[in-house]
Formats: sequence, structure tokens, C-alpha cells
Amino acid sequence: MDLRQKQIRPTSSPRKPRKKRKRAESYTVTNMYQRSCRLDISEATQVVYVVGTELKLNLIRCAPPESKFFSIRCASNVHYKLTPAAIDRNVAAHPLTPNSLLVITMDTVSEVSNDRKFSVRYYGETKNTIGNAVLHLTAVEMSLDVDADRDGTVEKNNPNKASWKWGPNGHGAVLLVNCDSESGYFKTMDSDKDEISKVSDLQDMSKMVLRINGPPELPEGYKLSMHISKTGSESVRVFRPRTNKGGRPEKWKHTLLKLFLKDHVMVVGKDCLADEVPYLGGKSELQFFVEGLRFPDKDFDGFITINLSLTEPSAKGCPETPIFTDTVMFHVSPWIMTPNTLKPIEVFVCSTNDNYAFLKSIRNLVEICGCKLKVCHEYMNRGDRWMQDEVEFGYIDSPHHRFPVVLDSPRDGDLLDFPYEVLLGPDFGYVTRQTVDEKVSSLDSFGNLEVSPPVTVNGKSYPLGRIIIGVAFPTTTQGRNMTKVVQDFLWAQKVQEPIALYSDWLVVGHVDEFMTFVPAPDRKKFRLLLASPDAGYKVFKRLQNDGHGKGEMFPGLEEAISVDDILNDKQLQVENIYVQNCIDWNRDVLKKELGLDEDDIIDLPILFKLVEDEGEHRAVAYYPDMVNMLVLGNQLGVPKPFGPQVKGRCALEAEMCSLMEPLGLRCTFIDDFAPYHKLLGEVHCGSNVLREPSTFRWWNLEL
Amino acid sequence: MDLRQKQIRPTSSPRKPRKKRKRAESYTVTNMYQRSCRLDISEATQVVYVVGTELKLNLIRCAPPESKFFSIRCASNVHYKLTPAAIDRNVAAHPLTPNSLLVITMDTVSEVSNDRKFSVRYYGETKNTIGNAVLHLTAVEMSLDVDADRDGTVEKNNPNKASWKWGPNGHGAVLLVNCDSESGYFKTMDSDKDEISKVSDLQDMSKMVLRINGPPELPEGYKLSMHISKTGSESVRVFRPRTNKGGRPEKWKHTLLKLFLKDHVMVVGKDCLADEVPYLGGKSELQFFVEGLRFPDKDFDGFITINLSLTEPSAKGCPETPIFTDTVMFHVSPWIMTPNTLKPIEVFVCSTNDNYAFLKSIRNLVEICGCKLKVCHEYMNRGDRWMQDEVEFGYIDSPHHRFPVVLDSPRDGDLLDFPYEVLLGPDFGYVTRQTVDEKVSSLDSFGNLEVSPPVTVNGKSYPLGRIIIGVAFPTTTQGRNMTKVVQDFLWAQKVQEPIALYSDWLVVGHVDEFMTFVPAPDRKKFRLLLASPDAGYKVFKRLQNDGHGKGEMFPGLEEAISVDDILNDKQLQVENIYVQNCIDWNRDVLKKELGLDEDDIIDLPILFKLVEDEGEHRAVAYYPDMVNMLVLGNQLGVPKPFGPQVKGRCALEAEMCSLMEPLGLRCTFIDDFAPYHKLLGEVHCGSNVLREPSTFRWWNLEL
Repeated sequence: MDLRQKQIRPTSSPRKPRKKRKRAESYTVTNMYQRSCRLDISEATQVVYVVGTELKLNLIRCAPPESKFFSIRCASNVHYKLTPAAIDRNVAAHPLTPNSLLVITMDTVSEVSNDRKFSVRYYGETKNTIGNAVLHLTAVEMSLDVDADRDGTVEKNNPNKASWKWGPNGHGAVLLVNCDSESGYFKTMDSDKDEISKVSDLQDMSKMVLRINGPPELPEGYKLSMHISKTGSESVRVFRPRTNKGGRPEKWKHTLLKLFLKDHVMVVGKDCLADEVPYLGGKSELQFFVEGLRFPDKDFDGFITINLSLTEPSAKGCPETPIFTDTVMFHVSPWIMTPNTLKPIEVFVCSTNDNYAFLKSIRNLVEICGCKLKVCHEYMNRGDRWMQDEVEFGYIDSPHHRFPVVLDSPRDGDLLDFPYEVLLGPDFGYVTRQTVDEKVSSLDSFGNLEVSPPVTVNGKSYPLGRIIIGVAFPTTTQGRNMTKVVQDFLWAQKVQEPIALYSDWLVVGHVDEFMTFVPAPDRKKFRLLLASPDAGYKVFKRLQNDGHGKGEMFPGLEEAISVDDILNDKQLQVENIYVQNCIDWNRDVLKKELGLDEDDIIDLPILFKLVEDEGEHRAVAYYPDMVNMLVLGNQLGVPKPFGPQVKGRCALEAEMCSLMEPLGLRCTFIDDFAPYHKLLGEVHCGSNVLREPSTFRWWNLEL
Repeated sequence: MDLRQKQIRPTSSPRKPRKKRKRAESYTVTNMYQRSCRLDISEATQVVYVVGTELKLNLIRCAPPESKFFSIRCASNVHYKLTPAAIDRNVAAHPLTPNSLLVITMDTVSEVSNDRKFSVRYYGETKNTIGNAVLHLTAVEMSLDVDADRDGTVEKNNPNKASWKWGPNGHGAVLLVNCDSESGYFKTMDSDKDEISKVSDLQDMSKMVLRINGPPELPEGYKLSMHISKTGSESVRVFRPRTNKGGRPEKWKHTLLKLFLKDHVMVVGKDCLADEVPYLGGKSELQFFVEGLRFPDKDFDGFITINLSLTEPSAKGCPETPIFTDTVMFHVSPWIMTPNTLKPIEVFVCSTNDNYAFLKSIRNLVEICGCKLKVCHEYMNRGDRWMQDEVEFGYIDSPHHRFPVVLDSPRDGDLLDFPYEVLLGPDFGYVTRQTVDEKVSSLDSFGNLEVSPPVTVNGKSYPLGRIIIGVAFPTTTQGRNMTKVVQDFLWAQKVQEPIALYSDWLVVGHVDEFMTFVPAPDRKKFRLLLASPDAGYKVFKRLQNDGHGKGEMFPGLEEAISVDDILNDKQLQVENIYVQNCIDWNRDVLKKELGLDEDDIIDLPILFKLVEDEGEHRAVAYYPDMVNMLVLGNQLGVPKPFGPQVKGRCALEAEMCSLMEPLGLRCTFIDDFAPYHKLLGEVHCGSNVLREPSTFRWWNLEL
């Protein structure tokens, strides 16, 4: 409502009686490096000065009307500059001109408040004194400090602390979203609580220090205030130690009391944009702890600004005036994915009533690699075996601390509760994106979310690799897609610029059904593996040529079929040409977006077939899809393809080994036929891997 | 839901019978500059080629297993490159190696489809022919074109059309939000309609042209598709002329038919991400018309991408494959404000039952300036006289067209309907931001939204000036603010980076109560005028000194009070020192943010007083607030201050004139005492000005 409309009332008449109010001579206000300041001839003016700034006085403004000259007296530790420059500083009196300006500075701090005097004396025509304006000055040094040089310690008053720059020569402090949970039971994400329940939680936060050098106390009414913007308050929270009257940190010995009175109190955060902080006099440091509340996203660029102001008292019912403001800037750590080329730490699989043998072979493989196996049991997975699809493992990183963070898929199968109930915990974070009015499809499962190893694409380097997702062709209005909320989240992280492939041609529609990356000793230190029907047919034709036409695919299984029959199936050939074209389309995109050569890519012999799916024809693997593998260092857990036997060995396994072994990779073929392949998934879909973070720090990216 | 979970069904068994399906040899897919392409020895492969791209063939992939050599035959207008480079192009047969690659290009377009032949012949050990793969090629030229060089015409295939760069040496097409209404009655914003009701509407849209050069028809099943992203579809809509079967634009002679069948149809837009567009064979051009749907905001950076793809037919039930995609990028014009230094076109005021005399003086002033007066009558304003507060005039600009756009304030006083009902119309746009859960305050009135003239601040230039708003001190949790939705909107426009001043110290809380800008012949071509109690007291003290202490302020009015009484009112002095400090605080901010010197600022003699307002003490003008003026070129409509008479002339008016006249500015003092001043507003609050757009084009900004 417009105040004016209710302002038709006596208060707007000059006759209104006014209450007596505190004197106001000392309202000097500014938030600038150079600050305007008033003189008063009737009364001494009290001014607090922050070392490093300038006080500007307009000399004529408050001069008695008849003043013609002025002279200046000041203590030795107060410096001043006159404009226009006085011809002779020693002259008793300078002529007063309409543009006479005075600039005051000090380079030492006060022992006690108001310990510096400064005065301007005004004279009339005959050099007779007609007024004397006195300033009582208090000089103080203060800076709000952060780790702007990203070395893990909070340096003093970094000149770049208020801005942020990417790159090895960049600057600007780093913040973590406090998305883990200090307590293992009764979990809540720490960022959901506006208090600190455990001291260990401080490790997840960025330190911020208020450094003061000045008198034991500020003149009466002066205060320190920390403040953030409305937008900022959605993204950050600041805590400080509880302090006693003396401003010293308090420790609560009595445990019962401790229960009610935490050692740390919130200063600013959600619904609290500003709060006073104590002035600890003399040479002192007050520590703050800063936590992020949200990840970068479509409507949040990740930057957060925190301000500390010195405010001056004002008349009763009038707000205090900020006379100096110090500002620092943080960037929230993005959520970062880990490619197959990074060292595995833990492997996750589900145990179901039908996958005992599978579990056993995974366990053996994991033991060889010397990493841990984490089994998600049936009471938790409720028969949902697709560990790859419910979660994606990543991490967040700062100079002082880092920990893994699981991205929970909106897929929400029966594994639904696993990420929050099992994974979330101390130094294990959680983040998710839920759709509002969007339909979730199979493409939202995270078998459809992968990341490449580090690449350089015509000069531009991606040291953390590039995210890879699968969608439908943009040219069709039908077709399935990954939900917008998840895509917006992935793009907003910025440090692993995503690539959209075409995966809607598959029934399940996941990129991990036709591609993966394996480590390699040479070239770009990795190879891209692609499923290839052409390569598959080459193997079968060679078998036929070599007289193995009667050899059986799926030997011993009800699906058994001979090499000749496969090659005679023209329909299957047509379908596989279509599939090869779909994969080639993605191959062209990957070559361009990852800067790959033909020699960086290996085609794996895999056939597909088309099935009717929601009126569309989409593809599924014809035999276990070897590219859908588990990559643990140089050990590969490959779906057992059940190819024709030649001299007692599976021809497809032999071909696979001959392609991988030159790279120093060892294939273990795992039977996933019944519990996974027949349900349209394989080894990779049924597992997930927590890996070590990259040694490259995200803030060193040149963006 | 995860498709796998429902995929436990026979379709996943290899035995499933399959339907006969269209042959699939010709599925060549790619969307890249270099595109992979398959050979087939059993059947000729049909390929459409877009001039400027490359076709890549892997020769060994589809070669018969026993092939050892190959040779190439091709028409003269088909060019090819071999890797590894054949030692001797003339040898009949080249050795076939695992990495034998072939790259095909063409530089002329086809007369008819499939008019180019290309074949690869495979030989065995003994050079005996064992297979021949034939390609039937169709070459076509196509480009989606926009005015990427911003000269008002759509050039052909600009190499920069897919990206956007700010600045005079920049590039990238420009789009207008179609926020006007072609019809004056039954108004709807054109951007709210997905059809074109009037041909004149096309003027508001950006032209986009599809240029084709190729055979009269494409091979069967090939199509053109225009597509945008989901995010894009919220911001843009594309129309094209309705075409007949031959693809020629249709004109509907029969008017009745015309009613039902518009000349233009929507191609893509809200809820329509992709659609086929006709291929007009030969050398042809198809025109599109593009309209913006939303302004840049917190969640929209203003960039829009539109794609056109050539798609290849696929098997029944399989989506067509994009084999070539051309992309163009637009940036939506921001909403731009006009400073006082720009030429006025129309002046808006409200007529009420008590402002006849005021209206008359405004009319006289407007006539002198030779611009139009628009009176908003009582049936529309319902007694709400604050024309400045309900709307802010701005404009949008593109190389082909520009028009004014009114920003409607969430204030929504009784003037509520005026902007939409009266202002919106042909080539007069409308935009507003409504709050959801935020409380609207007096600071949301647009007397609290101004813009500076062009400035340069330590090297950084703002040729369109900088937006100025008023808020509370950030250090207090109380205090009023401008709503976040409006602030987010203003910041998102980018081209007039806003400055936040402190205006909450005023009861009404608008920046126009203590500052304005006037044109000047020298220096920065303008002066900043600031209300100044110090300057006010200087005038009154001088009057006293000169023996006019008995002279009366408000002569003849009930509020009449002598100069002596004013100067003896210590309380009033204290309050004005506080007010001077509030204004000085803003003065320091403005000097820094606009790069001003003392000489760029003029202090106007104005006193304030504090009144109780919602428990706070806030300021109102003590006498008509002269800085709250109407600026029309060199003519100033200044609130009549009713100061003490000296030699038959108002001392305050005399002072005002002595400050303005040296700048060639003429003051007309307008009596707004009863109808505006006593309701806490003045001339500026009661008026609004539509001004000419700046001659500087926003896309030439260096951002």
C-alpha cells in the first residue's frame, strides 16, 4: 500500500509538537573508502575512523556565515590534506573558499576512544575568531578475513577477498554445502539445521576471521553488524562461538546446561539477514564458521557475499548508520563426478534371492582389486537390483576439507531409501533433485549418467572430464528425455560441461548400454569402448569361414542358436545396421566433444535386437552386453557373453581379451545372464563404485 | 518408473518373432561437420550430403572378410581423400588396411536426387572382385539465416550466427519480447497468443530465413525439422507463412476462409519443441518470424537458440535421424530506462477533483516544451494522483524495430488498471512483476526507481546510465525494501547496472525525494541535484543576517512561520543534521558509483522534518521539495517552495534560479501545496514522462 494514501494526517503539518531527542551532532555516515563528515562549531563532533579510509570535510558548509579565513590544529598522529592546497601551511589562517576541502587520515590505532583531537578555527574579515569546530577521533583497524588464496589458512586482509577468479592464478574463498550428517542415526542433513549439534561439524565449514586492532571499547553506541542479502540467505549460514559479556568465548562446563546452550550461535542465515557481532577490543580475533546450504543450480551461480559493517548510533527510532563495510566472497563447491580412470574405494551391489553366484564373483573380483565390497541387503533394496541407477557417486572439494556426496536419482525405485538411510552420514553428503510436474522416465536412471576421463578438445582442457547423459533426438517431439531439474543441476555445476548423447533408441535408454571408458597406458591414458554390431558380425562371419558355422551361441541354454542361423537371420542384420547407425551417430558426437581420434576408440563385438516398446521399436542386447562392465583399475568385470566355443574357449571372450590385454587390462567374465541380462541389465547396471577424488582442484579450472 | 521392472516379459527373449520391416541399408546418421557413413556390398546406399560437410567411410568395416585390395570409382563432381594416402592414385587396386579411411566431399549441388554415383570395389588375394559397394549421392546446400551482424537485414550464412558477442565488434541476432498489443480494444499482449491476428504484428518480430539450394525434391523420407530446447520454448515462438502442397506460400482470397485459416502458422513455441518445415526445392528462401516471450530475469540470461535439422528416414517405429543441424542464436532485448537528459515526448498527469490549477500550470509548461500532455482522468485514476509511482517508462530495441514498454509497479494503487488498459497498445509494450509471498511497501513505487545519465566510472563506461533504487540499510533487519521480484528483474537487464541507495529514512521512502538529474552544457553534460538542509539553513541564516528575520515562510498560509522562529527551532536543526547525514551517505555512494566530482553536484536548499511512522522516526519535506521536479529539456517544473519574500520575490525561488540559470535551465515554479505536498508528494511524484530512446544501441555495450 502506498504510505502517502494514509499520510493525510496532522503529522504532515509543520505545527506538530516533537519529542525531545538525543543530540545528533555525531551522525557521520558513509560506507565508502572516502567518507563525508560534518563539522559543528557549537559542539565537539565524535568520529570513529577505520584505518585505510579517508574522512572528507567540506569546510564552508557549516562555517558561520561571515567566516573569511580558517586555521587547523591537530595532534601529531592525525594527518590532513587541504584543497585547494594552501600556499603556505605555516600561515596562521587560510582564506576560506566555496570549494575548501579537507581530507583526514590516520595510520595508527587509538589506545582509548576519542584520544585524537582535530580542530578548525574560523575567522572573520579582521581575522577575529568567530567559531571553532572540534573533532574527537577514534582510530580502529578491522578486517573480515577468509582463505582467499586457497591455501587452507585464513590470511590477513587479502586485497582480493571481495571478488572471485577461476584458475591457478585466481583467488576467492571456497565453501562446502554442509550436506552430510554428523550423526549416523536420526539423520538430518546438517545444512537443514540452524544449530551445530557436534563440534566435528565445524570441520565441514569454512573459517572466517574478524581481526580487530583498536581501543578496548568503541565509543558508546557503535556496533559491529554482519549482514547478507536476501538471495544470499537462501545459500549460506554463519556461526560464531558464544561469547560472554567480556566478548570472550564461553565454555559451558555444566553438561546439562550445555544441552540447552550450544557453544556456537548462528549469526546470519535463513530468515536472518543481519545480526550484531561483539567487538573484542584491543588486538583480537573472532572466529566464524560458514556453511553452504545449496548447490549451484539454474537460479544460483554459486557465489555468496558476506558483509561486516561498523555502525554509528543514530537518533531514537532512527536506524544505525553503516560507516564502514568490509566484504568477502565465497564460491560453493560444485558436485563433481569421478570417471572410471580414478582409483576405486568401495563397490556397491544388491543381494537378491537370485544373485548369489553373481555376488560371489563380484566379491572375488573386488578382493583382487583390494577395495571394499558393500552389499545392500534385501530388506533395504526390496528386490531392486539396479544399484547403478538409483545413485551417482561424486564429491565436493575445498582447500580445508572434502568428502563424497551421493546424487540421488528421481527414479525412486525400491532402492529409494538406500541413499539417505544408508549412505548419508558423517563426511558422506547427500543431494537430490525431485521433479514437480515432470514425468520421470527410464532415462532418469543414472546408468544414463556417466563422466569421461580428463580430455582436451581443440585447445580447451577439461581436467575433470565431461559429464555424459543420454536423451532423445531433439528433432522429435516424442521420445524420452532426462528430467529438466536433473539436467539443469548438472549443467549448473560448470566444471564438467555435459554432453548429450542419443540413448532413446534403447528400450532401457542408458548410455552405459553402448559405451564405457577404460584406463590405458598410452595416448590419452584411456580408451573409449563402444558396442559395435559390425564388429560382432565380423566375429561370427569369421567363425563361419573358419568352419564353426554349427557352433552354438548360448551353449547349453534354452536360447541356444547356431552361428549359421544367426548369420542367416536377415531381419537381425537389418536391425543391427540400424543399431550400428545409432551408435555411429553417438560416436561422431563423442569424437567431436571429447576430441578423440579413431585410435582412441575400440569397437566391441556386441549384437542387439529390436523389440516393441510403447509402440516404438527399441533395442536390447542380443547376448550379454560386454561393454556394460565394471571397471576397477586394470581389472574389468565383464558380462559373460555365452558365445560359441572354439577349442574349448568362448570366441567372444577370446576376442574381448585380445582387445583389452594389449592395454594391460584383465577381463573377468561374470555370469549375469539370469539375474540381470534377462531383466535388460548387466554387470555395470547392477553395481556402483565410489572412487577417489581427482587430484585436480576444481577452482583451478580456467572458466 | 524403471522400464526394466516391467521388462520381465517374453519380448526380452531372442526367440520373439519380428515384423517384416522396410530395408534399412541407408541409415547414415550424424549431426556433425564430419559424419560417419556405412557402405554395403549387397545394396546401393542412398546418402544425402550437405555442402560444407564431410562424409567419412571406414572401408574395412563392411568389406567381405577375405578382401585384400580395393579400388574407387566416382563421378567428376565427387571428391575424395584416402588415408593412409594411397601411394599411387592410378594403381588399379589399393591394399586394404584395418585403418583404411575415405573422406568424401562435393562442392556443387544436385540437379535431381541421387544424381551422383560413387563405388568401392573389393578384391581378394588374387585381385579377383569379391564385392562392390555403391553410394547414390544427393548434394544440397542449406542455411538457417538471421541478422547476426545487426544491420537490419538477414545476411547469408554468417559464420558467427550460432554464437553471441557483446560490443561494437560483436555479433549475434537480436529479438524483441512481443509485449505490445496489435489491437487497441480487447487487448491481450501479442506474446500471450500463439497466432498472428494482424500482419502488422510481424514488424515486432525478427526475420529468420531458410535458404536452400538443391534438387526440386529430396529423396523420399528426408525431412526438415525446426527445434528448440524445453527452456527455449518458454522464451520464444517461431511463425512461418502457411504453404500449399508445392511448398509455396498460400494467400487466402476468401475472407471468410481467412478468418479460420491464418496466413501464418506457428512452427515452434510453448509446448511445441519441434515441427517439420517444408523443403522448397531448387534455389529458394523460406521466411520465418521470431518473437520473444519473456524478458531476461533471475532464471533467464536472455539467450535463445533455434535449430534446423535435416533428418533421414528410419525403420517403421524408429525416429528419423538428424544428419545435419544448423543453429542460430538470439539475445532478447533488455528493458531499458530513459534518463532526464533524453528528449521528452509525452507528459502524463492525473486529473483529480482538487488539482485543476496544478494541471493548468503543467499544461502551460508542456506547451512551452512542445511535447504532448496526456491526462489520466478520474474514472481511470479513481483519485490516485501518483502517476510517477504506478509506472516506469522504458523501451526495447533491435536493429529492425523498437518501441516503448511500460513497467507496471506491484504497488497497485487505484491507478492499477491504467498501464494495461490505457498504455498497452500497438507498438506500446507492457511488462510487470507481481510478488508472490513478499509484502509490497511504499519503496516499490517507482518514484523510488530512477536512472542516471550516461557515465564513465574509473574507465568503465555506462552509455545507458545506471539504474538507481532506494532501500533500507543492509545492516538492519527491520526497514523497508523494494521487492525481490522487481530487483531481480532490474539486475537481470544487465545494461544499466543498478545502484542501491538508502531511502528508508523517508516516510514515503523514494529516491526522487532527495535527488534528480538535470542536463548541463558542460562537464559530464549533466548535474546531480541533491536536497540539502545545510544549504537550506545557509539561506535562512543569510536572510536573518540581512535583517529579514521577521520574513515569513509560507506567507499567507495557515502554516506561516518566521525565519527567526525556524532558526530558533533547535529540534528542527537536530533533525535536519540527521537528514543531511542520510543524504551525505547517499552522496558518497553516488560519487563513487557514478564517478562524480564535487563540481558535478549541486546542493538545493531544502529542509526536512521527522515524523513518527510505524514507530520509526522518518523524514518528510518541511516545505515543497524543490528537487522533486519535472525535467523537460531545459525547462524545469519546480514545486513552489513558498519561501520568505524579499523585495517581492521568494528567496528560495531566487536561490533556486541562481543555481539553475547558469546551466541554461529555466525554472517554472508550480503550486502543488494542497493537492500534492500536503499528501507527501510533489510535482515529480504527480507526473511521468515518456522520453525518446537513447541513440546508443544496447548490444554495442562491452559486457
